[in-house]
Amino acid sequence: MVKPGADGERVRAALVALGAWPTAVVDGGRLAFVLEPCSTAVPLDALRAVAGVDGVAAPREACPLVARQAGQPVVVAGVPVGPGAAPVLLAGPCSVESEAQIHELAARVAAAGGRFLRGGAFKPRTSPYAFQGHGEPALDWLAAAARAHGLGVVTEAMSERAAERVAAVADLVQIGSRNMSNSALLRAVAETRRPVLLKRGMAATVDEWLQAGEYCLLHGAAGVIFCERGVRGFDAATRNLLDLGAVALLAHVHRQPVVVDPSHAAGRRDLVAPLARAALAAGAAGLLVECHDDPARALSDGPQALPSAALAGLLEVSR
Amino acid sequence: MVKPGADGERVRAALVALGAWPTAVVDGGRLAFVLEPCSTAVPLDALRAVAGVDGVAAPREACPLVARQAGQPVVVAGVPVGPGAAPVLLAGPCSVESEAQIHELAARVAAAGGRFLRGGAFKPRTSPYAFQGHGEPALDWLAAAARAHGLGVVTEAMSERAAERVAAVADLVQIGSRNMSNSALLRAVAETRRPVLLKRGMAATVDEWLQAGEYCLLHGAAGVIFCERGVRGFDAATRNLLDLGAVALLAHVHRQPVVVDPSHAAGRRDLVAPLARAALAAGAAGLLVECHDDPARALSDGPQALPSAALAGLLEVSR
Amino acid sequence: MVKPGADGERVRAALVALGAWPTAVVDGGRLAFVLEPCSTAVPLDALRAVAGVDGVAAPREACPLVARQAGQPVVVAGVPVGPGAAPVLLAGPCSVESEAQIHELAARVAAAGGRFLRGGAFKPRTSPYAFQGHGEPALDWLAAAARAHGLGVVTEAMSERAAERVAAVADLVQIGSRNMSNSALLRAVAETRRPVLLKRGMAATVDEWLQAGEYCLLHGAAGVIFCERGVRGFDAATRNLLDLGAVALLAHVHRQPVVVDPSHAAGRRDLVAPLARAALAAGAAGLLVECHDDPARALSDGPQALPSAALAGLLEVSR
Amino acid sequence: MVKPGADGERVRAALVALGAWPTAVVDGGRLAFVLEPCSTAVPLDALRAVAGVDGVAAPREACPLVARQAGQPVVVAGVPVGPGAAPVLLAGPCSVESEAQIHELAARVAAAGGRFLRGGAFKPRTSPYAFQGHGEPALDWLAAAARAHGLGVVTEAMSERAAERVAAVADLVQIGSRNMSNSALLRAVAETRRPVLLKRGMAATVDEWLQAGEYCLLHGAAGVIFCERGVRGFDAATRNLLDLGAVALLAHVHRQPVVVDPSHAAGRRDLVAPLARAALAAGAAGLLVECHDDPARALSDGPQALPSAALAGLLEVSR
Repeated sequence: MVKPGADGERVRAALVALGAWPTAVVDGGRLAFVLEPCSTAVPLDALRAVAGVDGVAAPREACPLVARQAGQPVVVAGVPVGPGAAPVLLAGPCSVESEAQIHELAARVAAAGGRFLRGGAFKPRTSPYAFQGHGEPALDWLAAAARAHGLGVVTEAMSERAAERVAAVADLVQIGSRNMSNSALLRAVAETRRPVLLKRGMAATVDEWLQAGEYCLLHGAAGVIFCERGVRGFDAATRNLLDLGAVALLAHVHRQPVVVDPSHAAGRRDLVAPLARAALAAGAAGLLVECHDDPARALSDGPQALPSAALAGLLEVSR
Repeated sequence: MVKPGADGERVRAALVALGAWPTAVVDGGRLAFVLEPCSTAVPLDALRAVAGVDGVAAPREACPLVARQAGQPVVVAGVPVGPGAAPVLLAGPCSVESEAQIHELAARVAAAGGRFLRGGAFKPRTSPYAFQGHGEPALDWLAAAARAHGLGVVTEAMSERAAERVAAVADLVQIGSRNMSNSALLRAVAETRRPVLLKRGMAATVDEWLQAGEYCLLHGAAGVIFCERGVRGFDAATRNLLDLGAVALLAHVHRQPVVVDPSHAAGRRDLVAPLARAALAAGAAGLLVECHDDPARALSDGPQALPSAALAGLLEVSR
Repeated sequence: MVKPGADGERVRAALVALGAWPTAVVDGGRLAFVLEPCSTAVPLDALRAVAGVDGVAAPREACPLVARQAGQPVVVAGVPVGPGAAPVLLAGPCSVESEAQIHELAARVAAAGGRFLRGGAFKPRTSPYAFQGHGEPALDWLAAAARAHGLGVVTEAMSERAAERVAAVADLVQIGSRNMSNSALLRAVAETRRPVLLKRGMAATVDEWLQAGEYCLLHGAAGVIFCERGVRGFDAATRNLLDLGAVALLAHVHRQPVVVDPSHAAGRRDLVAPLARAALAAGAAGLLVECHDDPARALSDGPQALPSAALAGLLEVSR
Repeated sequence: MVKPGADGERVRAALVALGAWPTAVVDGGRLAFVLEPCSTAVPLDALRAVAGVDGVAAPREACPLVARQAGQPVVVAGVPVGPGAAPVLLAGPCSVESEAQIHELAARVAAAGGRFLRGGAFKPRTSPYAFQGHGEPALDWLAAAARAHGLGVVTEAMSERAAERVAAVADLVQIGSRNMSNSALLRAVAETRRPVLLKRGMAATVDEWLQAGEYCLLHGAAGVIFCERGVRGFDAATRNLLDLGAVALLAHVHRQPVVVDPSHAAGRRDLVAPLARAALAAGAAGLLVECHDDPARALSDGPQALPSAALAGLLEVSR
């Protein structure tokens, strides 16, 4: 809202100088500017300080609990992830395929400087006829392998009923992209009080993603780490469309902990390393990477698995 | 096509080991695998060498001339851009607004290590009532300012009729994203024999983009540099959706020169630097950046313009 | 695969005549054509019958149980929905707000020729602070109101834990678009043996949607009725992007029962009627419509609710 | 803006009753509501009449000339197309392939009740190696065939240089979807004073489409008929994603003449008829359909061409 008598053009220019995209709207002698959602984050005080501005209207904060965790890392199993902390590697196989396999990979993840072992016990698959994971036994193999190598455990909960069982072994409980808007699951997982790794839905806006995080915090999650893994795009040239603009927005504007999964984004192992480097450069607090030592025999997603020998170099990018 | 009697499962595993996503198709006793478009680039010889493989079918190469420029830089005004060359900064205002402005900005671009001065003389705008650029006089101001500071000139041709006039001053002629599929303009610009900076269309697939490059080369362009500037997304949180997966694909698989415009991708100046760093990490050969010293008075796109003082740091990322 | 010695161009022309988009692929003397996914459905026998064709390879059927229900209606509470049946109206409020409200609306739905009363007891909301539905009591109000007016009951199950409770009152259990890929919920609902109304996910492909239907049938659902409600688009001019091409594909090619929810697609009541008519013309077997008699006091989605007086005209379109 | 002391909740309810999606924004004691872009079209006067409303701010009209043609048909070669007029069929081959072919098809279009003959002389193709049309001779064949059968002529201008030549034979000049944002071409075509058939760009918002229409009218076009042909989607199951919500919006809210091209939308002939019927039901003023009598020999887009015998039934839907 512009003061009566103020120079509207001067106000517009001052808003642009601050980085906002203003659209003029008029009503019987009064001028106001509506700012685009993509405008640079400008503190309300800075807007109010513009000469000629008579008032600033903003919607009520949608995610107060998410806002409260801004600017500081979420600490998981003693490891800080997020603003101010060093980048973290969370790696492992798509599926936990056997006890031997997960021990072998845990050793390699630890050797590469990884802090968390990831691996699926329950696998969300598009087809009901595809391999669905080894289930509960795999949880125990995963936990034992991680413990043996000083790693934290990340694994996905796909069912309300299994939330407690998963939380019993996981330091960080993953919500997959298919379930980002599954509020019953968000709640069941949050009630275990574990921190949550919240993957972005295939077509979720940043606002919807933040609100899903708010669900988790409201129902008791110890913290939320957001994970970008590519949204659905119109081009089959890559498996998904990695949205590093959203990562930069979460990291630099919302100051939230956000990690990136370049494996699902690329869908092909030869692009995992460049996208991992790009993610860190954009502000990611960590990388969630699929690796396998024998992709030929992987039970799921073999083509995007990185040989574990390639893990070591991923974090060597200064931010 | 799998040999009669060969072990199909073993063939599948070998394909996955190479990084391909195979789908089995069957026909009266014969087994074959179709590979997903997003599969890792595997040389046909490697596929043929898989034990049990009886033949490999692939579509005819769609872009032979683009393929011919793979792996080497395009040299523009003496500056190599692309595979093997150091990252290049192409910067300047969205619109050339005055002779004084463009001289001032040219000095700053040169001081920041930029090699090319960009600036619009003809502006593509969504509304016919928005500022459309100063036209021909702006071309001369731009050329003089660039010359005075040892910079090359990049500017956009929007009309077949103006192609020659633009090419007379531009070392590199830009095709904007609105015109990527405008074959008449591609041809008119290509016939001037200048190298082309080809922005990706709002919803163009990588294949369509490469084929637009093929149009340019077929009609005489000295070279094509691809430019990613964000595709249309479903979320207004950023102005466009920067597709660094496509950049990595062009840089590392197609080995083409590809630069990134983080200004249009982000639409807000506070995200330009992190996305610029991410672009270089993904494999970009250069950055096309909008800058302005007084965004408050910019005639177009002020909110995304970087203060020119911020240019200097953009290239300081090791690849 | 084309026979050695056959005229490839003639084969290509015959494939086009059948409605297929063929791309030639070659391998050491042998020619083959790959058909685009969007090609007209052509029986494999017709392809094999093309002179010069030496074999036809196709992936294994992904959804055998969905295929088995093709061409015939799913019967819900005695009402056939789908191929061969008359279009059906399923209407009611977004949320069941009170016992009085749902009785009032049930009367109006019945008067308008509706066969099912829909209404949410548990509401999936983006924000955890928005109204989440009245829960279990609302289920009983809904069932009583429907019974009183001879209507079937459609309501959404959002949680595995509530699946049985919902199925106890619902003739048709709705899976919402946020949960289309929530396989734990699909399974829990399917195990109740009720027929399922499966809303398409925001960014789900038709293949993924069919496979979600396969999950339901594999785990015991009595039938699956697909429901298109608009996918996520890039334009805020309508709330979602109604994909009637997918509806036509399901109705005319897959011959599945598919209904359309024009309320969520449009997001605004003034477009509900034209989109409802368009849906039936495209092949929809029914309409799922939100109505309310006092949208001003609706607890959710009021702006897209149709006054119940407007229901009567919706089905008056000959197919 | 809500009056000081007014009951904000009551104002909100009144806005919802009108069909608007209000979001509350607050500023030091003053309450205001921002309405979503997808809100039902509500006259500003109705908003101002809501008790407690203190003022309504709206952006300046972006497209005054488009608004001026609202509510009435554009008359092309004596045939009214748009609000109030009967649906019109514009049909013909993708490319004009020979003099004999176009005469034959013109006879069939006329027999089916078509009013316009469409056919491409210059073809926009993704690959520079694909058939690009027969060019100028095809224009003359097309005009002669149309004249012989009492049909109007619709054909595409792809180049500024050819705009006058095309306009000399075309009653309605088509701008293709690849060129919707090509302002130089819009201007060149508009300056011929012909009415324009403006196809929507692959990823154009309704606002951008309307503004492209404004370009045409501002530069002299006799009228603009909008044409929806499907936007780019994420699912290859259909060639494009037909947006009938946008058609309903243009027809019923903006009251503009809008026709639909079901051929490009579906990409397959077996879905053309259901989508054509759906388009008319949604409010389309006409259908632009590709037909061919020997698709096997079509030089472009054969798989989506309808046999001309199938044309006759397309318009038989009451609106």
